[in-house]
Amino acid sequence: MNKEKIKKLLEAVKENKMSIDSAARMLKDLPFKDLGFAKIDNHREIRTGYPEIIYCAGKTEEQVVIIVREMLKMGSSILGTRADKKVYEAVKAMCPEAEYHDVANIITIRKKEVELTDSYIVVVTAGTSDIPVAEEAAITAQMLGNRVERVFDVGVAGIHRLFASLDIITGANVVIAVAGMEGALASVVGGLVDKPVIAVPTSVGYGASFGGLSALLSMLNSCASGTAVVNIDNGFGAGYLASMINKGN
Amino acid sequence: MNKEKIKKLLEAVKENKMSIDSAARMLKDLPFKDLGFAKIDNHREIRTGYPEIIYCAGKTEEQVVIIVREMLKMGSSILGTRADKKVYEAVKAMCPEAEYHDVANIITIRKKEVELTDSYIVVVTAGTSDIPVAEEAAITAQMLGNRVERVFDVGVAGIHRLFASLDIITGANVVIAVAGMEGALASVVGGLVDKPVIAVPTSVGYGASFGGLSALLSMLNSCASGTAVVNIDNGFGAGYLASMINKGN
Amino acid sequence: MNKEKIKKLLEAVKENKMSIDSAARMLKDLPFKDLGFAKIDNHREIRTGYPEIIYCAGKTEEQVVIIVREMLKMGSSILGTRADKKVYEAVKAMCPEAEYHDVANIITIRKKEVELTDSYIVVVTAGTSDIPVAEEAAITAQMLGNRVERVFDVGVAGIHRLFASLDIITGANVVIAVAGMEGALASVVGGLVDKPVIAVPTSVGYGASFGGLSALLSMLNSCASGTAVVNIDNGFGAGYLASMINKGN
Amino acid sequence: MNKEKIKKLLEAVKENKMSIDSAARMLKDLPFKDLGFAKIDNHREIRTGYPEIIYCAGKTEEQVVIIVREMLKMGSSILGTRADKKVYEAVKAMCPEAEYHDVANIITIRKKEVELTDSYIVVVTAGTSDIPVAEEAAITAQMLGNRVERVFDVGVAGIHRLFASLDIITGANVVIAVAGMEGALASVVGGLVDKPVIAVPTSVGYGASFGGLSALLSMLNSCASGTAVVNIDNGFGAGYLASMINKGN
Amino acid sequence: MNKEKIKKLLEAVKENKMSIDSAARMLKDLPFKDLGFAKIDNHREIRTGYPEIIYCAGKTEEQVVIIVREMLKMGSSILGTRADKKVYEAVKAMCPEAEYHDVANIITIRKKEVELTDSYIVVVTAGTSDIPVAEEAAITAQMLGNRVERVFDVGVAGIHRLFASLDIITGANVVIAVAGMEGALASVVGGLVDKPVIAVPTSVGYGASFGGLSALLSMLNSCASGTAVVNIDNGFGAGYLASMINKGN
Amino acid sequence: MNKEKIKKLLEAVKENKMSIDSAARMLKDLPFKDLGFAKIDNHREIRTGYPEIIYCAGKTEEQVVIIVREMLKMGSSILGTRADKKVYEAVKAMCPEAEYHDVANIITIRKKEVELTDSYIVVVTAGTSDIPVAEEAAITAQMLGNRVERVFDVGVAGIHRLFASLDIITGANVVIAVAGMEGALASVVGGLVDKPVIAVPTSVGYGASFGGLSALLSMLNSCASGTAVVNIDNGFGAGYLASMINKGN
Amino acid sequence: MNKEKIKKLLEAVKENKMSIDSAARMLKDLPFKDLGFAKIDNHREIRTGYPEIIYCAGKTEEQVVIIVREMLKMGSSILGTRADKKVYEAVKAMCPEAEYHDVANIITIRKKEVELTDSYIVVVTAGTSDIPVAEEAAITAQMLGNRVERVFDVGVAGIHRLFASLDIITGANVVIAVAGMEGALASVVGGLVDKPVIAVPTSVGYGASFGGLSALLSMLNSCASGTAVVNIDNGFGAGYLASMINKGN
Amino acid sequence: MNKEKIKKLLEAVKENKMSIDSAARMLKDLPFKDLGFAKIDNHREIRTGYPEIIYCAGKTEEQVVIIVREMLKMGSSILGTRADKKVYEAVKAMCPEAEYHDVANIITIRKKEVELTDSYIVVVTAGTSDIPVAEEAAITAQMLGNRVERVFDVGVAGIHRLFASLDIITGANVVIAVAGMEGALASVVGGLVDKPVIAVPTSVGYGASFGGLSALLSMLNSCASGTAVVNIDNGFGAGYLASMINKGN
Repeated sequence: MNKEKIKKLLEAVKENKMSIDSAARMLKDLPFKDLGFAKIDNHREIRTGYPEIIYCAGKTEEQVVIIVREMLKMGSSILGTRADKKVYEAVKAMCPEAEYHDVANIITIRKKEVELTDSYIVVVTAGTSDIPVAEEAAITAQMLGNRVERVFDVGVAGIHRLFASLDIITGANVVIAVAGMEGALASVVGGLVDKPVIAVPTSVGYGASFGGLSALLSMLNSCASGTAVVNIDNGFGAGYLASMINKGN
Repeated sequence: MNKEKIKKLLEAVKENKMSIDSAARMLKDLPFKDLGFAKIDNHREIRTGYPEIIYCAGKTEEQVVIIVREMLKMGSSILGTRADKKVYEAVKAMCPEAEYHDVANIITIRKKEVELTDSYIVVVTAGTSDIPVAEEAAITAQMLGNRVERVFDVGVAGIHRLFASLDIITGANVVIAVAGMEGALASVVGGLVDKPVIAVPTSVGYGASFGGLSALLSMLNSCASGTAVVNIDNGFGAGYLASMINKGN
Repeated sequence: MNKEKIKKLLEAVKENKMSIDSAARMLKDLPFKDLGFAKIDNHREIRTGYPEIIYCAGKTEEQVVIIVREMLKMGSSILGTRADKKVYEAVKAMCPEAEYHDVANIITIRKKEVELTDSYIVVVTAGTSDIPVAEEAAITAQMLGNRVERVFDVGVAGIHRLFASLDIITGANVVIAVAGMEGALASVVGGLVDKPVIAVPTSVGYGASFGGLSALLSMLNSCASGTAVVNIDNGFGAGYLASMINKGN
Repeated sequence: MNKEKIKKLLEAVKENKMSIDSAARMLKDLPFKDLGFAKIDNHREIRTGYPEIIYCAGKTEEQVVIIVREMLKMGSSILGTRADKKVYEAVKAMCPEAEYHDVANIITIRKKEVELTDSYIVVVTAGTSDIPVAEEAAITAQMLGNRVERVFDVGVAGIHRLFASLDIITGANVVIAVAGMEGALASVVGGLVDKPVIAVPTSVGYGASFGGLSALLSMLNSCASGTAVVNIDNGFGAGYLASMINKGN
Repeated sequence: MNKEKIKKLLEAVKENKMSIDSAARMLKDLPFKDLGFAKIDNHREIRTGYPEIIYCAGKTEEQVVIIVREMLKMGSSILGTRADKKVYEAVKAMCPEAEYHDVANIITIRKKEVELTDSYIVVVTAGTSDIPVAEEAAITAQMLGNRVERVFDVGVAGIHRLFASLDIITGANVVIAVAGMEGALASVVGGLVDKPVIAVPTSVGYGASFGGLSALLSMLNSCASGTAVVNIDNGFGAGYLASMINKGN
Repeated sequence: MNKEKIKKLLEAVKENKMSIDSAARMLKDLPFKDLGFAKIDNHREIRTGYPEIIYCAGKTEEQVVIIVREMLKMGSSILGTRADKKVYEAVKAMCPEAEYHDVANIITIRKKEVELTDSYIVVVTAGTSDIPVAEEAAITAQMLGNRVERVFDVGVAGIHRLFASLDIITGANVVIAVAGMEGALASVVGGLVDKPVIAVPTSVGYGASFGGLSALLSMLNSCASGTAVVNIDNGFGAGYLASMINKGN
Repeated sequence: MNKEKIKKLLEAVKENKMSIDSAARMLKDLPFKDLGFAKIDNHREIRTGYPEIIYCAGKTEEQVVIIVREMLKMGSSILGTRADKKVYEAVKAMCPEAEYHDVANIITIRKKEVELTDSYIVVVTAGTSDIPVAEEAAITAQMLGNRVERVFDVGVAGIHRLFASLDIITGANVVIAVAGMEGALASVVGGLVDKPVIAVPTSVGYGASFGGLSALLSMLNSCASGTAVVNIDNGFGAGYLASMINKGN
Repeated sequence: MNKEKIKKLLEAVKENKMSIDSAARMLKDLPFKDLGFAKIDNHREIRTGYPEIIYCAGKTEEQVVIIVREMLKMGSSILGTRADKKVYEAVKAMCPEAEYHDVANIITIRKKEVELTDSYIVVVTAGTSDIPVAEEAAITAQMLGNRVERVFDVGVAGIHRLFASLDIITGANVVIAVAGMEGALASVVGGLVDKPVIAVPTSVGYGASFGGLSALLSMLNSCASGTAVVNIDNGFGAGYLASMINKGN
């Protein structure tokens, strides 16, 4: 994976500084720690404040606590998504500085202060019900060191509300457009700005919204250039990608 | 169906002016003419210029010609939708005043001049490829006696083009919004006007547009109040309903 | 959006009655009030009794109460849809004249008496289980100032029941046809009347009704001219559009 | 399969009239003839005029001709469905008395005259485009010895046309209702008669008819008791089942 | 609807035995009783023991009780499907002779003894989990006066179990085949018998059974002639249709 | 079914050692025991430790207990899948040596010790949430006498984790690849090994995973040769098939 | 849309340098040219070599030629996507310097030389059949001024081929991953690089690939952070967005 | 990928027999040959007669010829699937010993004679139209060195035909069950044999077979243990996997 390291290993082997067997073992053991039910990556360089990420849904409280403990040993900040209150309390019992963002269902543990970027990401929602997904995106991007602005409830059925916030939207480096139902917000925003737009369909709605399918298809078919789509309700994925783009990857 | 007529029949029977059997026969024979493969309604009052309608798809040229001939006997104007050029030529051979609207694939035969309404219907499309469906709606509404305005290629990816035509759109009595792909036009227009919006999804697009499904779902989920949807590519249905609304039914 | 106002603003600026900056600020601030999680439109003219509308699903009780309070300050009547009893009680605690329509799950607060139209809208259902959606449509239309007639449980499996109410149906200005399962009611009614029919598929049914998909597709494919469809279970949307059509928009 | 025969075989073996090996071979060889690419059943008793059936789609002309020749050796009448003109001509070259029903795409070869039933099956279609499927059902039922009546183009958008034929429909022993698009015909007919209704969805339509899916779902959800559904465009299956019911199986 | 009655009405009017207005009123009032939320048909002739039917799902206990009371006034036997225990208890409180079939979720009230047919309907299930749907079919058919045989848990994964019951299956006049998951039972049974097979897909299964869709599609595509399909889990519909066929309609 | 036995029966009949009627009865009675609601196969030879299998979902506790008791009489080991804790406790009350595998929701009763194969099956999961399905596969394969290795949480988003376990994966005789969401694990593993890969899509995920549909389609479309797919979440089926392959069927 | 320009207009009006009417007209006329069937945007600043874009599918040759001519008047370079050879020839007849990229179905007309970026975009495909979509992305990105590298036929079924190109992939600023069938390439690449990955599902495949749906769902569910998806076969959209990201928007 | 080789490389480097750079280059260059549009694997050991495989669909004739030529240089036998006649002729022009299997659309070039296995694979089809897919499976398995038996047209609608071939089916080591429409064959066969069954759904059918979806779902839901499914029409995949299982992988 990491060519430099592999070259160095080869050189060490060549120069007899390392046995072949140790080299083989290192290649296998280095990049993660095996907990049996999960394997924790620990090959990320310990950049200032860059968090390790845990997707908590489908894991027991015990599993999350064990993973967090293991990560804390490496000195990482932590971002736990899709965490309900019970999981948070279990984590807090072990690590009192854990914080809970209840709209976003995110647990964060900050080990180092991050300096935020000057350029910012704007998170836009069509309605009030889309806010939890939007907050998941926003908190994620903030934990990754980005300045984030929020513009909520500006769906296209009242497009003047969108235009009233046009300055803040067009001033952003990346736009995250969060919408359920007809998902038209992404197309309209995509037509107004010359920046990458990450569209997040939400499962908000009823009837023919079919759990977000309607917004998803709408966003995939957007005529506006410069738009791409993540999974339904995937605020985290949008925040992560937006951070990559905003920070020059 | 028609209570007045039924009451009169009952009275005629009561007053012995008509035998029970004739009454029964009349109830059955009155409203249409049976051609074997098709049954032509002839119960519409002969209003000035109101056309009879033929859906030509799935009928042979011979069938269409026979139906048209039968309708012409009643002195009706005629509107033949989904007619390809061959069908038109077969009809024209029998009735030289038949006209063909090739973008809309419509045959018309005008028996009486219709006076157009003052109030108008506006037909709006998202793109150039949506024009055939839009023309089907527009020609239909015109044949039914409505003034129609057209505003084409104003999809939301370039929303300034939509706004430049806002006067003509907001001045209409009914809006027909025709769009494929993400179908966002209907929502945006629905949020801008206080008039009924009839949304027509089109099968324009590729990939995840799934033959118009994307636009259909998007339009059904529109957050804008006052919008309803017809079948994919159903320009005729939109034009017909718009006419009902514009003319006070 | 509102050309008159924009022209007046431009003139005021030209005549030096207003600074450029105030003009810019007015353009942005005028049309709504920002509550952070929601933006309330307040640009509707205060017509007699015309209500402001809140879609309560997906909002917390607190959010609904705040929005209602803000709207009441503007003197508006209020129509809160998809509101459960708890939301109603929270609203009632703040505003004792709030009423609850429990079949329709609607909260209403009437600030002015509305005079009902002479012409009426008829709401027709196929079965007993479709009544909640039908009531959402009916209450909506009534709050918007329309006379409404109800004809329930006249599905096509017992079509004589439908015909027994034919007078009241054909006498209406607009028909709202509410049906789940096979949704055939809309087609049959559409073939019987010469008025706009707004079809509302419901999620009533089981098995291959797939949450209303069956009725939705059936209604979209209706052969009857003059029919358009709203989202599954969207009684509100049907009532709103019917009101637009009945009141001449 | 056939218990009588198996018992007789067992008895013959017991009484030493037949060797065990012949018995085994008979059990295997009796019921069909193997052509390599197809296996022809020949275990149907040779009832008067009861035809053997070939589904021609997906078979080459040569394959069909070979199968027909083999069947003729058994003295059977033949019913070949989904046969295009080319297949028919190949069959006719071998067997000149073969007839072609071009609307239904059926080849028939009658070896014995069949006496038709007194009771009859009625085949009803919603539109003109549904006739080919209806004819497949009608010809099938006729070849199987049933009197068949046809009532075409009586879709629910002009329900008076359906009522005008009510006598002939209610007089039938079984109703086959053929309809595409919204498929409402089956429900309406099912509500009007007290006889079994076999609903045949057709792929007629466009847009949200999705190749017959709309009519299929609609028919499956029919509220009318006494209705069952066959595959989209499966006129043959409907005709066959209707014959079973009409003839007391 | 009922031609005899209409003729008699016309004659009564002609002979001055009845005023026109009464005739009109009778045509409207005769066939059902309007309870506001439901309309009860009372035009069925009171055949020996033939029950009135109530689909209880989606109705409140109060509504069911009112409907039952009204039906009892007409002296009908009653069959209430999809009734949970609470509904049953409410009915029993009013009418103590009500019986509950808890596997089938059916309430029955027998007002007259029915003599069962000699010929019988067989209800076959693939698995144990399909029994509730099968019982809905069986109880329905019994209440309608049919002898019913049950053959449960003979799915095709152990086809010898099916063959062991072949005598009872092939001896039936109509077969109801109830199966979830892959639904192959209907095809296999359809290939073994020369009687009408009514296939009932069930929502039993998981994963790619998609709530019964898999079995539904499988049954619709059955290669066996003589098979038709009802809605997923619609045991009632199958029992009703089977009765029609078994009793010669 | 079993030709040998049938031949012997025929011979016994021929040689008058058995009456025809007994032969017929034996053919019917031999292979299973009828419990009314279920039919238990007892035709499996009692191989060392080979268990009888019960799919517990959709069966009541009583039904499972009765089936288990009947199976124990035959001396079989037992494998009960999809069993919740309550079912287990009911079984344990009757048979105290019953064991419960709570991650896999499996009840086992071992009557004979099984010797495990030398060759092994490896069960690989993409994530932690896929473990329950994987355990269902693993316990099944073990009960059937196979050595099983587990490699969990090696999804392709961290492909180095997969490579670190490559030795154990490539050394297996059969690979079971369990993954939800995008299901890519099956393709990657399929490309790395020259052994049969049984892909198990899981319903793990959210949004556009549509209950496992995404993983299912992905796995079916795998470009890697040597892969086949079982139903979503069907760990049992994968374990059973893997055992067949590993043990040379 | 463009706040600067609007402010300047307001100032010009205030200072009486411009009449209100001209200001209004300018606001409307400025941003595009209306061709009746299409509206050409001409508000893009004439950056060095930045092309105007035409989506040719669904437009007639004449329409494309007229649009191109109009764009050339503005001195723009041109990028015409989804153009078949006939359209190209019509364009070439008018503008001989037009070039055709036949694998990508793109017409380009370069008016100015563009200097390419140092950082590059890599376009990766799973198979040979994905190349046309990949080329659409690559040519688009190149026309927009980006250095582009191509790595084709490195699907996960032969993952060593992917790893052999890992240097060139990890060295890119943005990755475009193009794949049909199971679409696993995007997940694997997303797990290997720390750069934004734009996933393009293609309609390559058969059977359960359902026209690209399989790859689309797979990519949306990717567990790899930093991935977003565009419409099926939308190479242009991917190239455009990649350019935005690579060039710092 | 290949641990032995990597270890040897490391040792060669350690012992200074190879430079680090050559080692790196070898790791990259070894396993395939890059043709630009395709990358040919050449790391398979040249086992007796084991063919290289080309999926010809979506490749031009030129591309196929170039790939074949390159493979022939390595002395491989070749199996080209989904090849139409034109592709075959282009290949034959270059390599005259190429053979064409026209039912299966397969090109084969045998470089070495393969000895067939004693144990055999049986390929079973439900109908005549499934034969092309079955032949793709059969030819594939034969080219890979397996004895193959064919049993065609034994669908469950005539289950006695299936039973007549039961000996040959139960005697196989692996069963490939090929069926379209309702796909029940796989379940029935799976219930009859104790061998692995590879189910291949085909796109044969019409209407609600939805291009093979019906058979696919049916097979995935098979209640018979020991069954797994490949993509619709994927005869090659089934033949390849069957060979792996039959030959002990």
